Amino acid sequence: WLGAWERTNREATIDHCIAQLAERGALDNLRRLTGEHDGPRVGFMFSDSDVYKVLEAAGWETQRALEAGEGPGETLAEFVPDAVDLLSRAQQDDGYLNSFAGADGRARWSNLRWDHELYCLGHLLQAAVAWHRVPAGDLAAPLARARERLLGVARRFADHVLARWRAGEPVLCGHPEIETALVEFHRATGVRAYLDLAVAMIDARGHGTLGPDAFGPAYFQDHMPVRDARDAEGHAVRQLYLLAGVVDAAAETGDAGLLSAAERLWRSAHAAKMHVTGGMGSRHRDEAYGDDYELPPDRGYAETCAAVADFMLSHRLLLATGDAGYGRAMDRTLYNALAAAVDGTGTRFFYSCPLQMRTDRAGAHEQAPAERAPWYECACCPPNLARLLASMRHAVAASTDDGLAVLLPVSARIPSNGAEIVVESALPYGGAVQLSSRDRESGAPEACGERVRIRLPEGADLETVAGAEAHVDAGWLVVEPGWSSVRIDLRMGAMVRRAHHRADALRGHRVVTRGPVVYALEGVDVPADVRLEDVRLAQGSAAPRVDGEILGAPAVVVSLASDEAGARGPEQLYPVAGADGLDAPSGAEAAGFTARLVPFGLWGRRGTGAMRVWIPAGD
Amino acid sequence: WLGAWERTNREATIDHCIAQLAERGALDNLRRLTGEHDGPRVGFMFSDSDVYKVLEAAGWETQRALEAGEGPGETLAEFVPDAVDLLSRAQQDDGYLNSFAGADGRARWSNLRWDHELYCLGHLLQAAVAWHRVPAGDLAAPLARARERLLGVARRFADHVLARWRAGEPVLCGHPEIETALVEFHRATGVRAYLDLAVAMIDARGHGTLGPDAFGPAYFQDHMPVRDARDAEGHAVRQLYLLAGVVDAAAETGDAGLLSAAERLWRSAHAAKMHVTGGMGSRHRDEAYGDDYELPPDRGYAETCAAVADFMLSHRLLLATGDAGYGRAMDRTLYNALAAAVDGTGTRFFYSCPLQMRTDRAGAHEQAPAERAPWYECACCPPNLARLLASMRHAVAASTDDGLAVLLPVSARIPSNGAEIVVESALPYGGAVQLSSRDRESGAPEACGERVRIRLPEGADLETVAGAEAHVDAGWLVVEPGWSSVRIDLRMGAMVRRAHHRADALRGHRVVTRGPVVYALEGVDVPADVRLEDVRLAQGSAAPRVDGEILGAPAVVVSLASDEAGARGPEQLYPVAGADGLDAPSGAEAAGFTARLVPFGLWGRRGTGAMRVWIPAGD
Repeated sequence: WLGAWERTNREATIDHCIAQLAERGALDNLRRLTGEHDGPRVGFMFSDSDVYKVLEAAGWETQRALEAGEGPGETLAEFVPDAVDLLSRAQQDDGYLNSFAGADGRARWSNLRWDHELYCLGHLLQAAVAWHRVPAGDLAAPLARARERLLGVARRFADHVLARWRAGEPVLCGHPEIETALVEFHRATGVRAYLDLAVAMIDARGHGTLGPDAFGPAYFQDHMPVRDARDAEGHAVRQLYLLAGVVDAAAETGDAGLLSAAERLWRSAHAAKMHVTGGMGSRHRDEAYGDDYELPPDRGYAETCAAVADFMLSHRLLLATGDAGYGRAMDRTLYNALAAAVDGTGTRFFYSCPLQMRTDRAGAHEQAPAERAPWYECACCPPNLARLLASMRHAVAASTDDGLAVLLPVSARIPSNGAEIVVESALPYGGAVQLSSRDRESGAPEACGERVRIRLPEGADLETVAGAEAHVDAGWLVVEPGWSSVRIDLRMGAMVRRAHHRADALRGHRVVTRGPVVYALEGVDVPADVRLEDVRLAQGSAAPRVDGEILGAPAVVVSLASDEAGARGPEQLYPVAGADGLDAPSGAEAAGFTARLVPFGLWGRRGTGAMRVWIPAGD
Repeated sequence: WLGAWERTNREATIDHCIAQLAERGALDNLRRLTGEHDGPRVGFMFSDSDVYKVLEAAGWETQRALEAGEGPGETLAEFVPDAVDLLSRAQQDDGYLNSFAGADGRARWSNLRWDHELYCLGHLLQAAVAWHRVPAGDLAAPLARARERLLGVARRFADHVLARWRAGEPVLCGHPEIETALVEFHRATGVRAYLDLAVAMIDARGHGTLGPDAFGPAYFQDHMPVRDARDAEGHAVRQLYLLAGVVDAAAETGDAGLLSAAERLWRSAHAAKMHVTGGMGSRHRDEAYGDDYELPPDRGYAETCAAVADFMLSHRLLLATGDAGYGRAMDRTLYNALAAAVDGTGTRFFYSCPLQMRTDRAGAHEQAPAERAPWYECACCPPNLARLLASMRHAVAASTDDGLAVLLPVSARIPSNGAEIVVESALPYGGAVQLSSRDRESGAPEACGERVRIRLPEGADLETVAGAEAHVDAGWLVVEPGWSSVRIDLRMGAMVRRAHHRADALRGHRVVTRGPVVYALEGVDVPADVRLEDVRLAQGSAAPRVDGEILGAPAVVVSLASDEAGARGPEQLYPVAGADGLDAPSGAEAAGFTARLVPFGLWGRRGTGAMRVWIPAGD
């Protein structure tokens, strides 16, 4: 599953992103700084970050290609040197680099709340970090040179900000992201000052420094020091990026206060502000979390970037704590919120990714379309997906004190001392996971000398483990050393779930899941004379069961009924209920029918139409 | 009921608005045009309209005061001449008048989509119309002079626009309102050209003339010609003001196509896009209607101005068609959406007026506060309420071909030929309505010579009519001539209502109504150890019944239970449901209790806190 998506990402998405950078003006915005382009600046103020994210994706992909003995793709090999050359020339002598502020008479650092200068720097640093991990010696000369120059550009801009900080100038960004990037840049360069700056930036937040704004301070993560905050609040992407940086900083400094703040706020988000798909954000106006349990499926904002950021955060917390719950959150996000964000071609994307689309949808705006689009004027999401997927293989496993942990039990090859462990996994659609330990060179079976922990997915019962001594411990299957082949079988039945009783918008609805996968009902899968808005789960019907496939994934069959739409008028909108007001609907039940549900990640791939994850069940 | 509110409006709200105009800079914005103020312009681009709405309210109130033999209030009598003098001096020689466009280097008419110049003119015309109806001879000299000058200012600006239209310049406003105002100005002045211009403006909409915008053409009512539109769409206030103008134009021109368009779009809004309180608008981002049946109680935008506009539209349609359904809509809006918009002091207001407020409400923005505020930077709502209330008595009754129609059966004195009909009504809280016909001078009973139609409220059963021959016809009680006193008794029991099955966010909830009044449950009325978010209607309990009073209104008692909040974590957010997924909640039911509901219009008057109109009932 993941391998196929990674392949699409490298064979289609990255090149598509490269083409869009040129077509939509992100590169031209930078060429205005060098005098090579004299048109007006276009797009959002943070369009530089689109370029950086694509460079980052290209870096991770190049690393993978070299390790696999492949050369980097042609489009990539042409784009990267040109783009880095452009950045190098666009950078000012003192290291400053931004195509929005500092241009067209707009003063640098004049609006930290909105101008995204440090946010863009953050993405520049992450691109540099990705390329830093590519062995320079394996690269052809143009890419090797681009790699060095990109690191230099990043370092000069970072040092420019460092100098500002040391001079006592304010260094705080309305959009967090720089924090995690600085810690990663510190890891790559070994320069402690970048870490110190990240910690300083984290602690500078929450004092209203960024000034008043119609969106309020939580939008900018400036409402409360993160160490004191109890609830995930404000713009979801900003909250989550900030927390990723907080975990990074805690990991490097050992600051337990920072780590517990991140865990607390993760829990706030995941306990009461998370859509069942793992999507985050309920409000369109300010791309924000709302109240606890404010989880409207139709207007759930669930921005793709929030899913990316939440995956990053859960991954970091899993590494920092070993708590398998963070891994289950990675599953949820990866197999649902992230999977739905792109189509099978890898070239069409959702920005907002809601859990319901009505038959006649009214008044979309660009960031909340009814179907996936090739690009967005606010283009943050597509290249964010590209960079995440290109680096996803680094999230699959990690070393532990006494061995190895498989964080995402997907098909993969994991180095283990001199040997390698080959994972062949049917997840997320099947429950069979086979691990083989073998010599990396010869491929011959070789007994695994490490204790291997495999993180178990949600909604799956462990049936058998064959070939090794193993036990379950707090969401991990712990496999003791000495095996060369282990077969794990998980049973994953379709499950019906409800929402917490405080989740008002979900009351009277059910959702079907199987293992970590959330299912959706599409209009195309109900009879032509039935409108999706009139469908509900039939009372007393058989439990959902897997039956057949849709788009290569197991379909789940449910029994449904449809209510009559009835007359349409003010009198029918709020009818009087029965004697005590608690009776069931009086409308005669139409003939029942069965319909197949599709994994949410695959919805909308068979044409545009209505969809719902939460299916009416009550009254 | 209405009389008390009208009194608050004249004794508090109008003066409060006058004070806010001075404090918040709306008058200073105009003084910048005369050179009397040199500070920066403040507030929204349409702040002139705040001044005009207050002048309109003052006009209606002055008319009432004179008819009642009272003098106009002191504050009003001082404000109006000064404000009109300022307008007169601020107006340019060619009639143009706007404190935003045409100032600070911003060209007049350069951005019809956003600049609200014609919208402001509309409110100026409506102020002039209100003062036109004040008999000049009864006014003291300063007010009489102000009345004449205001009419002159309005006429000069209107004629300026008329000239532009005749010259072929575009005359279309991003915010409809001018259309209804021009028809009313035509009625006041007898100048046909104003009506022609209104019709031309109506028909100019829907061709994308206003240009592209991130909010899309429906926001500006420029997405489709109104004659062709099938659905109420876009910004709710703009849609409703436009339709008010459409009915006005149809009434004057006899254009059946316009009238049927207005009826069709009213029905679209009221059949599938209306909150049970009569509030309109479901989306915060663009203050818009959403999909059909997208009616989230917590995030319902339900702007006060939308309720004002909808009341205006329903009133016009009732006059145009005689269909009592429009009158029932007036009730719903007046007794619920509008009533809740202001507190008992008349000086604190809701902008957005949602149907649910959670205990710990996150991330409000100024236009969607958790409690009523004295004013708003976007100050459209408070003076809009003031002008509506000041003119409300004109909505109480109307003449018909063969007599008189009581559109709103509230306490009132209605002229009827030489006599007057005195209505003493317990509505909306009681069902007794007494009509007496008497000589206007002597007060002696006098047989009524007209056929009087009384529009019956929703949710009320007619029990008895005593003192006259009467019958019910399509929502009207038709009382034949010859009576001098009629007593009508309506029985209004508390009713439990549900929502249409397509209204997903309301599934599993119930609302209690009594007659036209919607009830709400406030946190202050449940036991201290119970959180409002955990409360639900108890299964199999007694039907709601009136018991006691809250704030002078009948309270309705319901039987409730509360669910345990339970552990809080990702595992508890979407728990697995029972075997077939359709079972009831497994949590043991806590001890039941009863609680009193308060009319929605009175919520939040006993301190700030949680509230919900829709009470959980199912699962």
